[in-house]
Parts: sequence; C-alpha cells; structure tokens
Amino acid sequence: MIKVGIVGATGYTGAELLRLLAVHPEAQVTVITSRSEEGRSVADLYPSLRGISDLRFSQPDVDLLAQCDAVFFATPHGVAQGMVASILERGVKVIDLSADFRIRDIPTWESWYGQPHGAPELISQAVYGLPELNREAIASASLIACPGCYPTSVQLGFLPLMEAGCIDLNDLIANSASGVSGAGRQASIGALHAEVSDSFKAYAASGHRHLPEIVQGLTDMAVSAGGSTDASVNLTFVPHLLPINRGIHSTLYATLTDLTVDVQALFEARYADEPFVDVLPAGSHPQTNSVRGSNFCRIAVHRPNGGAKVVVLVVEDNLTKGASGQGIQCMNIIFGLAENAGLAAPALLP
Amino acid sequence: MIKVGIVGATGYTGAELLRLLAVHPEAQVTVITSRSEEGRSVADLYPSLRGISDLRFSQPDVDLLAQCDAVFFATPHGVAQGMVASILERGVKVIDLSADFRIRDIPTWESWYGQPHGAPELISQAVYGLPELNREAIASASLIACPGCYPTSVQLGFLPLMEAGCIDLNDLIANSASGVSGAGRQASIGALHAEVSDSFKAYAASGHRHLPEIVQGLTDMAVSAGGSTDASVNLTFVPHLLPINRGIHSTLYATLTDLTVDVQALFEARYADEPFVDVLPAGSHPQTNSVRGSNFCRIAVHRPNGGAKVVVLVVEDNLTKGASGQGIQCMNIIFGLAENAGLAAPALLP
Amino acid sequence: MIKVGIVGATGYTGAELLRLLAVHPEAQVTVITSRSEEGRSVADLYPSLRGISDLRFSQPDVDLLAQCDAVFFATPHGVAQGMVASILERGVKVIDLSADFRIRDIPTWESWYGQPHGAPELISQAVYGLPELNREAIASASLIACPGCYPTSVQLGFLPLMEAGCIDLNDLIANSASGVSGAGRQASIGALHAEVSDSFKAYAASGHRHLPEIVQGLTDMAVSAGGSTDASVNLTFVPHLLPINRGIHSTLYATLTDLTVDVQALFEARYADEPFVDVLPAGSHPQTNSVRGSNFCRIAVHRPNGGAKVVVLVVEDNLTKGASGQGIQCMNIIFGLAENAGLAAPALLP
Amino acid sequence: MIKVGIVGATGYTGAELLRLLAVHPEAQVTVITSRSEEGRSVADLYPSLRGISDLRFSQPDVDLLAQCDAVFFATPHGVAQGMVASILERGVKVIDLSADFRIRDIPTWESWYGQPHGAPELISQAVYGLPELNREAIASASLIACPGCYPTSVQLGFLPLMEAGCIDLNDLIANSASGVSGAGRQASIGALHAEVSDSFKAYAASGHRHLPEIVQGLTDMAVSAGGSTDASVNLTFVPHLLPINRGIHSTLYATLTDLTVDVQALFEARYADEPFVDVLPAGSHPQTNSVRGSNFCRIAVHRPNGGAKVVVLVVEDNLTKGASGQGIQCMNIIFGLAENAGLAAPALLP
Repeated sequence: MIKVGIVGATGYTGAELLRLLAVHPEAQVTVITSRSEEGRSVADLYPSLRGISDLRFSQPDVDLLAQCDAVFFATPHGVAQGMVASILERGVKVIDLSADFRIRDIPTWESWYGQPHGAPELISQAVYGLPELNREAIASASLIACPGCYPTSVQLGFLPLMEAGCIDLNDLIANSASGVSGAGRQASIGALHAEVSDSFKAYAASGHRHLPEIVQGLTDMAVSAGGSTDASVNLTFVPHLLPINRGIHSTLYATLTDLTVDVQALFEARYADEPFVDVLPAGSHPQTNSVRGSNFCRIAVHRPNGGAKVVVLVVEDNLTKGASGQGIQCMNIIFGLAENAGLAAPALLP
Repeated sequence: MIKVGIVGATGYTGAELLRLLAVHPEAQVTVITSRSEEGRSVADLYPSLRGISDLRFSQPDVDLLAQCDAVFFATPHGVAQGMVASILERGVKVIDLSADFRIRDIPTWESWYGQPHGAPELISQAVYGLPELNREAIASASLIACPGCYPTSVQLGFLPLMEAGCIDLNDLIANSASGVSGAGRQASIGALHAEVSDSFKAYAASGHRHLPEIVQGLTDMAVSAGGSTDASVNLTFVPHLLPINRGIHSTLYATLTDLTVDVQALFEARYADEPFVDVLPAGSHPQTNSVRGSNFCRIAVHRPNGGAKVVVLVVEDNLTKGASGQGIQCMNIIFGLAENAGLAAPALLP
Repeated sequence: MIKVGIVGATGYTGAELLRLLAVHPEAQVTVITSRSEEGRSVADLYPSLRGISDLRFSQPDVDLLAQCDAVFFATPHGVAQGMVASILERGVKVIDLSADFRIRDIPTWESWYGQPHGAPELISQAVYGLPELNREAIASASLIACPGCYPTSVQLGFLPLMEAGCIDLNDLIANSASGVSGAGRQASIGALHAEVSDSFKAYAASGHRHLPEIVQGLTDMAVSAGGSTDASVNLTFVPHLLPINRGIHSTLYATLTDLTVDVQALFEARYADEPFVDVLPAGSHPQTNSVRGSNFCRIAVHRPNGGAKVVVLVVEDNLTKGASGQGIQCMNIIFGLAENAGLAAPALLP
Repeated sequence: MIKVGIVGATGYTGAELLRLLAVHPEAQVTVITSRSEEGRSVADLYPSLRGISDLRFSQPDVDLLAQCDAVFFATPHGVAQGMVASILERGVKVIDLSADFRIRDIPTWESWYGQPHGAPELISQAVYGLPELNREAIASASLIACPGCYPTSVQLGFLPLMEAGCIDLNDLIANSASGVSGAGRQASIGALHAEVSDSFKAYAASGHRHLPEIVQGLTDMAVSAGGSTDASVNLTFVPHLLPINRGIHSTLYATLTDLTVDVQALFEARYADEPFVDVLPAGSHPQTNSVRGSNFCRIAVHRPNGGAKVVVLVVEDNLTKGASGQGIQCMNIIFGLAENAGLAAPALLP
C-alpha cells in the first residue's frame, strides 16, 4: 500500500485527491496538512468525507511527510517551491498540482506569477505530468509538475495535429470555458453564486497565466514533430467562466496546411491506446457532464463544410483530468500500478 | 461474479445502476433491456459510459434475463408486475425499483396508480427493501420492493422517534424537496431547464403517490413499537421541486410526547451500526451535495429552543440511496456480500 | 419628482432600488452613498446600470441626504440607528430596509443582534412597512421599518387565517427557503457558486433573527383579531438556502380549529383589493420564477384530504416584495402616488 | 395607442413580447393567437402575467389581426410565410421574429430549412430589422424580418471592423454560446434541466441555420464598405449551449490587416449614438447577466499582446435584443416613437 501525503488539503484539488484515493486499491492517504486548520477533521470541513476518512490536518512538517511514499502539493503557487527539495532528499516522490514547476523559463514564470522563483535548480528535474505526451519520463521521475487544467485540454486537443505537422502554427485559437471550482475554495465576490450563476463571461482575454504553459507545450510538440530545434507558435487563448462547478470545454480552431488529412482517423489513431482520452465518432459534440468527476478527456473533431478550418472540441473535469486525477495517473505510472487504478469510476450523470 | 440484468436501463435509475455496478467488485451487468432502443449501445445513449460499458440494449426477454443471478427493474410502474413471476420461477432474484410491490393494500395501490394491479399474488412475498428496517427479511427474499426516494428519507428520519414511541403520531409533517432527476428522463415542458432552473415550487400538496407508502411504513413502525396491532398515523406530506439534478432534502416536524428524551443520543444509538446512515453532530445542517452520487443518508436533529417540537433534517441522493444504490445494497445483503460493495465511493463535492 | 437618496447602495438591495427607481415615473435617485466606494460610478460596480444611471457614490453626509425627499437605508443592521434621527430632523422621510426598527422590544432586538440598540427612542415612531397590514399608518409615517424578506412571506401567508381566528396558534410551522441574494453581496465561502449550486440545505434550524420579527407580527394579528391584549403564538421557523439568486418560498402549516371555514374564499376575500398579493386558484402551486424581479406575492392554499391541516404556499422575490420593492410601495403610499408606480413590470420569466 | 397582435404567443418570444409591452407607454397588445390554446388565458400559461394581462388566446384569424396596427409573428419558421401577405394587404405592419424573411437567396433558405419557401415574392420588400445597420429602411418598412439571436450578436460585434475594412475577411471566427430559452418552450430531452444544467457543450459545429444569415449580413457590410459589388466572407461559426436561461455571449476573432487601427476608439465612435449598444471601457469583459431581460448589447474589444488578432466580446439577451426587444425597437422606429419606448428598464441583476 502506497502511503500518500497531501500538502494543502483544504482546497478543492486536495478534497478531490481524498475523494479519488478513498477508493484506490493500492494507495492510502496517511497525512494531510494545512497551516490554518491544524487539528481539524477533514470530514468536518468536507462533510462528503464523513464515514470515509478519519484524517485530521497536521502542520506541514517534513519529517511527517517523509514517512510517505508520495506527496502531493495541492497548494497555491509558491508553496511547493519552498518545501520540495527537502522532501525529495528523503526519497519521497513529489507530485505538484500547482504551477511551480511547469514553466522551464524562469523569467517567464517570474513575470506571470509576480514573484521570484524559489527553487530554480529543481526545474530541470521536474517532469511535465501529461502522460499522453511524457509517459516514459514520468515513470522514472521524482518530481512531477502536473499540467494546469486549461493546458491539459488545449494540449490534448492540438496534439495529434501538431505531431502530424498539418496545421498553420501561426494562427491557433483556444476558446476555453471552465467551471468555477477552478477559482478554488476562496471567498471572493466574483465567485459568489449570485454573481456566477445564470451568467457567462470571458476573462483575462488579454493574457492568462496558462498561456505561456500552453505555448511551451505546443512549441515542444512542434519542435519534436519538425525535427528542428525551434518553432514559433502563435496562440490566442481566451478563457471563460461557466456557471457550473466542474468541467472545462475547449473549442480549438486551426487552419489545415494539408487538406488531404483525415482528421478523424488521425485523432483515433493517436489516442487508440490511451486509457483516458476518448475520441468521439465523427459529428459528435462532447458535453462536460459526460466526464464529471471522472478522469476522462473526450474529444471530437470537425471540419465545417469540409474546409481548411479544423475545430476540435475537448472536455475534461478540471479537478480530475485537469488536476488531481491526472496527478494520481502520474503516481500510478511512477509506482508501476495499473494506470487507471483508483480512476475507473464512470462520470456522474446526470 | 454475480450476473446482473437491468430491465428498462434507458432511464436515470437504470443509468445509475450501470454507473455504480461498473465498479462493483463482485457483480457484473450482463444484460440490459429496452423496448425502444434495441440494438443501441448504452454508451451512445449515456456518453458518460463510453470506455466503461460495451453493452447494447436487448428486448426484455425472459430467457435472456433468466441467465442472470439478479434482475433489477428500473421501469415505470406497471411493467414489473407483468414480468416478475416468470423471472422468479427461474430462480432469479428480483429487485424492483418501481412502485409495483411497495404497497400491501391493493385497492390503495390501484387507487393511486389508476390501474388494476397486475400481480397481486406476489405482494405477500415482496420484501420492502429498506435495510435499516428489514435487513433480515431482505437477506432471504427473492423479490425486493425498493422504497421510493421520498419514502426512504422520511422513514429514516422518523424511524428512531417512532421506535422510541416519543412523538405524537397524529401530527407529523414531512416537507420534502427533490432534484429534478426524480421526474425521470422524459421529455416534458415542466422539467425543462428554462422552467425549473432558478426557481422553486411545491407540487402535489393535496396528495402524492408516495404518501400511502410512507404512511404504511410509519404505521408498521408504530405498531411494532407499540406492541399493538393497530396504530393511526396522520402525516402531512408536501413535496417540492428543487433546481438541482440529484438530491432529496426532507425537513420533518413532530411533537414530542416525552420531553425528557435526548433526541441526539436516540438517533446516534439507533444508527450506530448502519453503514449508510450518518447522524451529524448536534447543531448541524446536512446539505444535499454531501451525498451527491453516494449511498449515504445524512441526518441532523434539532429541538428549537429546547421545546416540544423536534425537527429532523435528512438528505440523500434520490438516484442512489433513494433508488439504485439502495437496490444494490439489498442485492449485497441477499448474496452475502459486504453491504457496501460497490457503494464505497464518497460523494462528488463540489 | 421625488428626490431619493440611498444609503449603502453597493449591496443587492441598494442595486434593486436603483433598478426599480430607474423606471419610476415620479421619483428619481439623486444621491447614493457608500463609505468604501466614494467617487466610484455605480455603473462600474453594477454594469447592468450602464446607460441607465450616471450616479457616483458619495460619503453618507447628512447635509447631502437632507436635500432628498426620501432616504432609503440599504445597510447592514446598526447603521441606520446612528443616522436616522438627524435625517428625520431635516424633514426627510426615511425608509429603512434593515432590521434596525422592526422589533419593538429592545432587549429582544439586542439579544438577537448582539449589540446595544443605537436609537431606542425612535422605535415608537417607526411604522412597520407591510402595506397589507398597515397601509394607513404608513401613509402618515416619517420612519418606515421595512419587514424582512422571510417575515413578509410568512405574515402574508398566515394573515387571513389569523384575522379569521380559525387556527391553533400554538402549533404554527413556517418552512421557508430563500435564494442566495438574501445573504448579500459579501465574499464568503458559504455563498460561493461551488458551495451553493446544485445543493440545498436548512440553516439556523435552532433559531434565526427573523423569528422574533415574525412572532411579533403574528401576535399583533392575534391580539387584534381576538380583541384581547395578549396572545401566545408558538411558531417553528426553519429557513433553507436555495440554489437560486432571487426568490423566497414559504410552506406554512397550521391546524384549523374551525373545519367549516372555506380557506380559498377566505384568502380571496382578504386580498381582493391588494395590488400585489395574488391568490391563485384552488389547487395551484406558485413558483418563485413567477415573481422574479416583480413586487408580487403569490399565494395558494391547500387542505390535504380536506382535513384539519391547512397548507399555505407563498412566493415572493426577496429583493423586491421582500425588500426594495416593498420599500418603494411604502414610499408611494407616503407620497400619495399610485401604489404600483414604478412597480408595474411583470416578472422575468423564463 | 398602437394596437398590437401577436401570432404564436405561447412560446418564449411571445411571452417576452407580452412582458415588454405590458409597460410600453404607447402600445397595447389586443390580440394573441394560438392554434392549440384557444380560449385559454395567457396568465394561466404564464403565471408571471397574472395581474398584468387578461388576454385569452384566439385562433389566428386575419380579420381579427387586421384590427391591429402591428402584428408580430413569434412562430416557428414556415408559419409567417403563409399569413403575412393577407395581413399586409390590410395595411397592418408586420414584424416577423422567425426566420421566414431573413435570407434573400431562396434556394439557400430552402436548403437550410428543408422546405419550399411559401412567399418568395415578399422577400424583396422585407427589411432586415437590425436598427444599427438599417434604421432608415426600417422606418419606412411594412414587413420586418427580425434578425436571429446569434446573428444579432455576431453582426454587431463585427460591424465596426467590417465598415472600417481593417480585417481579413477570409478568416473570421464566431464562437457563440446561448442560454437554453433559445431552444423554445418545447418538450425535448435535450433541453431538460437534468441534461443541460451543470454542463456545457458545442452543437452544430458543422453547420447551423444562423450561419447563412450571418454571412449574408457580413457580406453586405463588406460590399458596402468596399464599394464593390462582391465580397467573399469566410466565417467559422460554432454555437454552444449554456446552462442558463437567457443570454448570448459571442467571442469573435479576426485578424487585423491594418495594425495601426485603434479598435477601442473605432467601436466607441461607431456606437456613440446607439441607444442599445454599449461599448465597455478597454480591458473589460461583459457578462450576460448585465443584459438579462434588457435590450442592451454590451461589447468589449481586445487585442491580446497588442498583436494582429482582435477579440470582440459581445453579450445580449437572446429573447430581448436577440428577438422580442429588437422587434419592439423596430416597431418604435416604424411608428415614430422614442426608440427606447417600453425598453428602458435595466437588466435584472442579480
């Protein structure tokens, strides 16, 4: 039984780890930490865990966490940077759900997050935790930088096209929409029911922190596909806020440079062996509730009027495949477990 | 591995059975039937089941169903009545989620459902599938009449008080509210998003089909507690429609005839060994999302100002503990499995 | 044109006053105040008012407010107490939407609100602003204490029965549910979309601040109907939180002491001349969206099985008839305007 | 007082006409028709209209409608085609909210709507009812073809850019999302609360009936701006279904061919005198609830990173500016009334 620690388990991604790991056949959460809720029962904070978990929050102590086999960080950015080195030293695997180790270029990170990076020396050993792209590297990694929720959906949607080299890299559009749990369990007027429900809006149209992460990923794909060491990717990314709790829907637009490509076949072939990526039949439109609470990502691909424009529709649960489920998938790979261990439950529908 | 058949698997309770049984360690769905969708893949109807189930709908054929160990009816009332006898004859256990065998008094059933009862001879052998009340009888039953969603919440909320004989039976009130999945997957204007969302209303205030079922259950409890053969229970039951998909909340009101009773202790003692009934600490208020998708029923009990009025708050998921989860709990009992087999997953929150 | 000032116009009841008064034919908002948002345009805070109002927030200055004919307080409790006297002195009518002057018994107020009352000498001149009960007194009042949102619905629902003296005062139940705007525009985890939506719960089952206000009102009705100077009313009041923005639904239960009364006729007769109380045909169930954004209160009355229990269903918009609309209705009465001036628009449905 | 008739007043756009016209100072609805609900009170169908309207549905009789000054068609496509000629003959103005007269090219109409056009001879006299584009022609029209809900938002969003001739016409993208009232008041599984709420999806990604209407409008703008008689517009339009009742949000993408243009100034100048188009300050993101129930269209324009891509964000209420409100705006223009008569109420927020 793999012993798991969770740093920052009071937020929604922490609670999602607890929910998913409660039925994991080969892992067990043994430590949960919170600076503000020390001593409190997690079931008191999340009544959904009553009868499921008896754990109480501890202070985030390295000696305590070192007794685990794997430690997840479900913290705001900046926290993992200060603690990861000492945990790695003790031989514990670290899976960071925050943004701390996703971006390789430190000035870029510092510019978007507005603070100095606290552990730049660790970035080179962090493996980007997108199994569909990096499965082998994940298997031997000690430090996983889990992708952001938006970046997972956008990268999985563009990946087959990027690898096939059949689209114009200079004009990519990702029109994404997320449920409000993506904003975390923080008191804010903007996330109130009375402000969010029965409404819809874009935000950060002029620039969002997930943009450089997505561009880095797409550029990697382009470089890898092109065999060159450089590639220029021009992406316009506009996120929107959905009046739902869970779920991301990305609508991606690209222009084919090769009109002969069979995009449906391309996607089906690329993801044929992936346990969590589901390519829908031609003509389909995935809906977010078909992945609610599950680790699946469902994708449909369209060519309106058979033209040059390809439209990719991608759905995932931002807390599952977009965060905690993907982290567990990485953990399963690292420890040689079945990749879907603890992740086999279907989505909750309706 | 127990082989399971589901008759009428196109509706929400059928889909819920498929969702829950997908992760059941000792049961497997082998047959699903539908008159209207023969040949269609269930994953086509419920995309949440893509990658989970390869089953296709068959016609509801008795020979096919007789190959199962257990058959669930997830059908509208009136259907099970016509098929159950021939299935029972083949030695198959039947768990009926519909209203067909819940009410022992046939004229009462016929009056509320507006049609003659199709299998009155089977009613005496049907066991009412509320494990908290009937666990032993369930264990040896061949035909289970699963309780309705409202009746489960109301009966579990009143049960400790009825057994203790400490309330006035002549003035019970059940003010209940249900999510809209209780209306089933039927096209109707009244269940449209534009009609239901951002709104709330009572319905059937002058009489609802679940009333006689609840009264029968409460009367049984009173008779059993009182040692007499008769008891008169006077219940006012007003259901309401909530703009949520899943969840029932019942607010129950009764008047204590014994003011010395410690209602909190009473509830805690009664449900101490129940795997799915959770009595919250004094002063709590359960919320429906704490049981969303799970088989838990959570209860809190209040005595405002320490007076004679006792207020019981009960939540359950109408599709799980209120229907399919409870049916699986009964199946587990019948087949001697762990009672929570396949039902161990926490609620989905947020 | 009546000049109106609004103190505390940043909250939802303030915004509702601005929305309604924008189309009032004989009143115009000339001053809005806020301590925290001085200088800011209200249309910047509430983009729904862009193109409608050019007002900017001022500090709450008495000289400024004294230039108005009427001043509304849309503030948390405790604020009006400190400012009302100086405004009344200047001959301005005051309509207080907060709880400051609703309860006549000062120790009761101080006990529920946990602070000393700041203007006890004004309580005797405050008129409770429920036009259906107090129209004449309102017409000549200088200080209106507008009823709370829950109390409006509960009192209007019980009023005909109380006046008829046909129910048992010792066993009244009000099972109420409110949309989340009732919690105000305050950042809090409990009011987040991810916590409120797709869920339902009771709260304050052991006691809510609106209980003493309702009991005071019902007692007044009983005293008035009975011709005595005393009456004992025993009410159990359980509020619930609905996953909707606007709307209150109260389900009221009482026991008839006179079984010959025709409750439908009683309600229709009592409210025949009321411009904003709509008694639905027998057998109806009002829904909150039928009053969304309007000043109507709709009521249906049931006697399940023709028994002694009477069930009254009441809906209103908590921000309109439950707060700002009712305040404007009082203003119209005070200034001799048509009672529905500015309040004639139908509800927004769907 | 202008006498108004509404054909097909049982649907949501019909109900919206009744809601808006109830407070119109110079128009009054005198006739409402419905084939299926003859004799029924509209307030029985829409309880929000109780106390507001006493009208009952009549059969759609031409003699009856000829007594009106203006007749609105709030019918499914195909109905107006059969009745309009006889009504126009009687000197009555007709405002058609359906798709019957929007598309000038008859084979295109017949191809998308799958039936022969019933009144091709009337198309040339129909005026497209987008006041921001066609105000003069509307003023003298007898037959108005009101734009579709999506087309209104997309055309108003692209209009300033098209007129300025500063974008590449060959690569326009409209990523739109609509509330579910756009699907009408029809019983369908796809519009059930349990299917729509807490979810999001695209639909008709390969082609939607509003596409040819939008392309026709954009092409007209391009021809007009370019001074040529021909222009080729290539638009990719992907609609999505929002779990809200009212509201459309369009996110538009175009590539600037002139990088020196100040897009914020361009939009502000173009719409400076428009009563219902509100250009937000630079950096803003409009939300649909800021126009809920109002006739406003709010627009923000962004150039991410100051690059060549321009992103336009547009919100409107699909039932108001996207249908009935726009129809009334056209009526006001035709009859020489204030353009905002009956349309002055602010949005309902929250």
